[in-house]
Amino acid sequence: MDAHNGQDQEVNPWEVKGDANGKIDYEKLQKKFGCSRLTQDLVARIEKLTGRPAHLLLRRGVFYAHRDLEELLNAYEKGEPFYLYTGRGPSSEALHLGHLIPFQFTKWLQDAFNVPLVIQITDDEKRLWRNLSADEAYRLGKENVKDIIACGFDPEKTFIFSDYDYMGGMFYRNIIEISAAVTMSTRKAIFGFSFDSNIGQMSFPAVQAAPCFPTSFPHMFGTRKAIRCLIPCAIDQDPYFRMTRDVAPKLGYIKPALIESSFFPALQGEGGKMSASDPNSAIFVTDTAPQIKKKINKFAFSGGGADADEQREKGANLDVDVSWKYLQFFLDDDEELKKIGEQYGSGSMMTGKVKARLIEVLQKLVAQHQEYRAKVTADVVERFTSPRKMDNLFAGLKLVGES
Amino acid sequence: MDAHNGQDQEVNPWEVKGDANGKIDYEKLQKKFGCSRLTQDLVARIEKLTGRPAHLLLRRGVFYAHRDLEELLNAYEKGEPFYLYTGRGPSSEALHLGHLIPFQFTKWLQDAFNVPLVIQITDDEKRLWRNLSADEAYRLGKENVKDIIACGFDPEKTFIFSDYDYMGGMFYRNIIEISAAVTMSTRKAIFGFSFDSNIGQMSFPAVQAAPCFPTSFPHMFGTRKAIRCLIPCAIDQDPYFRMTRDVAPKLGYIKPALIESSFFPALQGEGGKMSASDPNSAIFVTDTAPQIKKKINKFAFSGGGADADEQREKGANLDVDVSWKYLQFFLDDDEELKKIGEQYGSGSMMTGKVKARLIEVLQKLVAQHQEYRAKVTADVVERFTSPRKMDNLFAGLKLVGES
Repeated sequence: MDAHNGQDQEVNPWEVKGDANGKIDYEKLQKKFGCSRLTQDLVARIEKLTGRPAHLLLRRGVFYAHRDLEELLNAYEKGEPFYLYTGRGPSSEALHLGHLIPFQFTKWLQDAFNVPLVIQITDDEKRLWRNLSADEAYRLGKENVKDIIACGFDPEKTFIFSDYDYMGGMFYRNIIEISAAVTMSTRKAIFGFSFDSNIGQMSFPAVQAAPCFPTSFPHMFGTRKAIRCLIPCAIDQDPYFRMTRDVAPKLGYIKPALIESSFFPALQGEGGKMSASDPNSAIFVTDTAPQIKKKINKFAFSGGGADADEQREKGANLDVDVSWKYLQFFLDDDEELKKIGEQYGSGSMMTGKVKARLIEVLQKLVAQHQEYRAKVTADVVERFTSPRKMDNLFAGLKLVGES
Repeated sequence: MDAHNGQDQEVNPWEVKGDANGKIDYEKLQKKFGCSRLTQDLVARIEKLTGRPAHLLLRRGVFYAHRDLEELLNAYEKGEPFYLYTGRGPSSEALHLGHLIPFQFTKWLQDAFNVPLVIQITDDEKRLWRNLSADEAYRLGKENVKDIIACGFDPEKTFIFSDYDYMGGMFYRNIIEISAAVTMSTRKAIFGFSFDSNIGQMSFPAVQAAPCFPTSFPHMFGTRKAIRCLIPCAIDQDPYFRMTRDVAPKLGYIKPALIESSFFPALQGEGGKMSASDPNSAIFVTDTAPQIKKKINKFAFSGGGADADEQREKGANLDVDVSWKYLQFFLDDDEELKKIGEQYGSGSMMTGKVKARLIEVLQKLVAQHQEYRAKVTADVVERFTSPRKMDNLFAGLKLVGES
């Protein structure tokens, strides 16, 4: 096959591969998966309902697709509660900026809607798919939890669990219910199939599906089945929840709603892959200020001219410029961003200046993260991870059918 | 295909189908599965090691096949400990006599070797394979546990667990380890494969395998991996443990040993199937004395002559006579059994008399079971099923490498 001609993108929970140039066609992906486009009308609706300006990842279309978000907002408006569910597969010790994004956004959702949140650490998944020991996957998960907590979630409304720790009870019951409702034909259609896969991989989708059902968390929701679930995630996770949405009505649950993002690019650009084993592919939350400066200056792929003259003459190609892309994810000031885009794109601003601004933004972000993480003691972890009885999760939300 | 010519027997954990006449060729099965024959030499060895006469199911070859039993006995002789593992899939409320057999035999093994025992109630399996709700499978399991306890196990050395209840911790960790080590190709080769199966069925073999590894029970065995496991079971369960034995060394465990029985026939004979939905196919432990009498007299398939004259002339065909078969399972007196066999086979004893003796034996057995079961209070169940810290499990056994 000619790699430069017609190579299809391949996106699933275990592989993200763009076209021959590493480019992902997000519109094609959204249509292929059958999700809806997250329009600016819907974003405005979220602003109206929450009384807050939309998070920059919403305003700028990074979270760009959804399933049943409109229905969820309608229900919320009528006083129906929902909870948030997101997760992390612990495959590396340090998180990079791409890992932070769904959590930062989820924190905003939790604050804006004032709703409970469950975060699944799929240490079992990483044992099944990677060459990691259970002990190592578990340990990485525990480390990742500290970084997740450092994103600032509400301890009164957030439950973070490792699959290894939490497995059992209603969580396991729901996994079996889901497993019984999904045939291998369906699994093959959604996730593909190979006889080389191990048997644990076959049923794992039910483990990731179960937290979509509130009865998996009796300490939070009791036995109530009619609580909606909203999942913020990157769009590669969509297959899991497509499966879950098929199963939900059969088991008496509301289909989970989704709000889905495009991917965060590697420093080397969209074709590159951020990888914990290549420290120069990404900015990690453990990086020092000088490391951040060096990485951005040295590795952030530039769409600017080859030299100052060419940049002045032709301007930068923003479509491939990583610094510009990163600013879209992390520079909150719309005015400033717009100005940078105009000047950099037209050639009146040099790459060096854009990178300098990005370095500033990321150094501040990472330093703040490190400051918060240092405060995440064992007691704080215990508070987030113990399946304690949680009351008043829906304070301020009138539950339909309840007084 | 001509059903009277060449229909192959099919025996796996979910189906037991004999040849065209319902007959199972046990030798063929043992050879196909690759187990060893349990010889009378090995039985004599068990008698010598335990200082007890062998259980009638050993003497009479009902437990007729094994894997690594000799190795286990060698180790035991040197003071190496082992534990027993058996189980039950709770598909019916009342157990029939066929269900009791492995438990009666396991009780004998526990007493004779003075070793700990774990009993798995696979309520999750019954949810995955049968049209049973989780609640119903769980309830049936709880009822079955009472009948199992009534077989007389040592409460100090026995742990009975429902998968739904016990799932989690090291049990789940081991399930994931096993799952990661078994490919779908292997699963297909051992159990078959269909795209109509559900995804839970794919990984379930790991759930039945995990109790073969002592670390699944930290409250009993701590973190020790070098404890042998002996599984008494009917031979249809062999595929599960063939798979487990393949995996064991990869995970640092000793391969579990097996001692395997032929099947207990239905009242209607070997071609029939004992079924909870057909009360006349089996004697249940809940049957009254008159019910037992009626069932044996009316339904137990007779190999005797059509009338007294024919019986006197030709004698009974013991190969198909159910009363004679049942006596082999339950009449402990070898002398008496031999006499009945000779007289009934030669025609000097009538079917009625054999049935009368069987009725007596079964009425006594079932009455005793009911008496014991009535004593199984909630407290007793709690004692057997709580994962409490168990000490002195190997009292009397010197553990190799320990003082």
